[in-house]
Amino acid sequence: LAIHASVNDRPAVYTWEPNSNSGKPLFVLNEKGVAFDYHYIDLIEFEQHSPDYLRLNPLGTVPAFIHGSKSLTESTPLCEYIDAAFPGPSLTFPDAAGRYEMRRWCRLADRAAESVSVIGWHLHLGPMVRAKPREEIERLVARIPTRERRISWLAAVDGGFSDDQLDQARQAIGAFVSRMDAVLAQRAWLAGDRFSLADIVTFTNFYALPMSSPEFASEEVAPHVLEWLRRIYARPATMRTFSLARGLARRAFEIRDMLGAPREVRP
Amino acid sequence: LAIHASVNDRPAVYTWEPNSNSGKPLFVLNEKGVAFDYHYIDLIEFEQHSPDYLRLNPLGTVPAFIHGSKSLTESTPLCEYIDAAFPGPSLTFPDAAGRYEMRRWCRLADRAAESVSVIGWHLHLGPMVRAKPREEIERLVARIPTRERRISWLAAVDGGFSDDQLDQARQAIGAFVSRMDAVLAQRAWLAGDRFSLADIVTFTNFYALPMSSPEFASEEVAPHVLEWLRRIYARPATMRTFSLARGLARRAFEIRDMLGAPREVRP
Repeated sequence: LAIHASVNDRPAVYTWEPNSNSGKPLFVLNEKGVAFDYHYIDLIEFEQHSPDYLRLNPLGTVPAFIHGSKSLTESTPLCEYIDAAFPGPSLTFPDAAGRYEMRRWCRLADRAAESVSVIGWHLHLGPMVRAKPREEIERLVARIPTRERRISWLAAVDGGFSDDQLDQARQAIGAFVSRMDAVLAQRAWLAGDRFSLADIVTFTNFYALPMSSPEFASEEVAPHVLEWLRRIYARPATMRTFSLARGLARRAFEIRDMLGAPREVRP
Repeated sequence: LAIHASVNDRPAVYTWEPNSNSGKPLFVLNEKGVAFDYHYIDLIEFEQHSPDYLRLNPLGTVPAFIHGSKSLTESTPLCEYIDAAFPGPSLTFPDAAGRYEMRRWCRLADRAAESVSVIGWHLHLGPMVRAKPREEIERLVARIPTRERRISWLAAVDGGFSDDQLDQARQAIGAFVSRMDAVLAQRAWLAGDRFSLADIVTFTNFYALPMSSPEFASEEVAPHVLEWLRRIYARPATMRTFSLARGLARRAFEIRDMLGAPREVRP
């Protein structure tokens, strides 16, 4: 992993897959048509804790967005930064009430995403990390900056989540999806009459819903959410972003086909 | 509790004390010099679960901000709404980088505030609620809209938090205060060279630090945080806001004196 200074105004994104927080800047940049350098940080290899990466973001989280001399790491405020600082179609609302609604949905989605990541760890990340030899896991965990986070990583690798925690996470996802469906029965996009950062922040956390939580993604319980997913999968910027995936988020091509969304971009 | 429709452009705020989320719109409105109607929702009496209030905000959380036909309830996005929709001094930054930094701090403060509310429940709210007769507690809890939240309220009333949970909350507060102190050693305000929503959102959660977590609020460990608190306590809008307090937040007058901040507004 070599860290490059960003040249002129061209931003550099250090992040993992187009998935969850990691995906936010990738979807926003592609929607706006902004050229950028993409540096893949492999969470399965714990590259977010490598000394090089910690120089960009001492917190060891993804994404890190480098623009001129700045390193921006808080993913949802970063979406608003990219939307305001670069040319391309606006992804926000012109009025204060629309922006409030957009930010409210971003907060709701980010909160619900904590439950998605519990299920995601249980189904995907946990097993991928556990498949490594024990010595390698211990070597990777040893370089995590703080003792507190070394302990919680080891606990996640070894123990995972209890049935109670998994049940609570599933309930929270179900409640959020119903809330989305009620709103999307009234309007095409989450925050109003236009596609906005609210849709991107929610989509990057929920694009895999039909695969990882099919019980909440049926035509019976969430028809408007399914329509909304189809509309976003049909956007050229969406599939251009998923084309950057090397691992987990490749599943997006399969999910698009499950949903019957149009196929403009191939894997 | 009678709910009044808001007349013309004059907003109405239904909220508890100038404290935590409940205080956010009050501080922002007073900083901007916007006239508003204030309706006190007593959390100790569980008024946020009354049928009248649930019509304004079905979630049963405070604040609810009524402007024209809209009810806005997500407190940090609400601060940006008030700043943009009303006249008065701007509480944000003119540039995208400044606004990113402001929103980043708002997120950090809101996350750290979860730990403040654990300690706040333990020291203040829990004992106040537990002082009520048991039948009254059960009557108040019975009208909470969802079973899940009835259970967690009863658990909070009966059990409170474990020593482990309290320790973790104290550690998180300490870590956040060190982070603030490091930034405030470099600049007067949290997000840059001007007082902004970042300072308000953080202050409403941390104004009582010298009283509730004195170990983190000494001249030795957090001198710049103490100076920042003094500067905010010295703002006329701050003490005008605390004058609205009827219960818990009256402590602000005592804390201001502990800090040796100037006394422009009397309790």
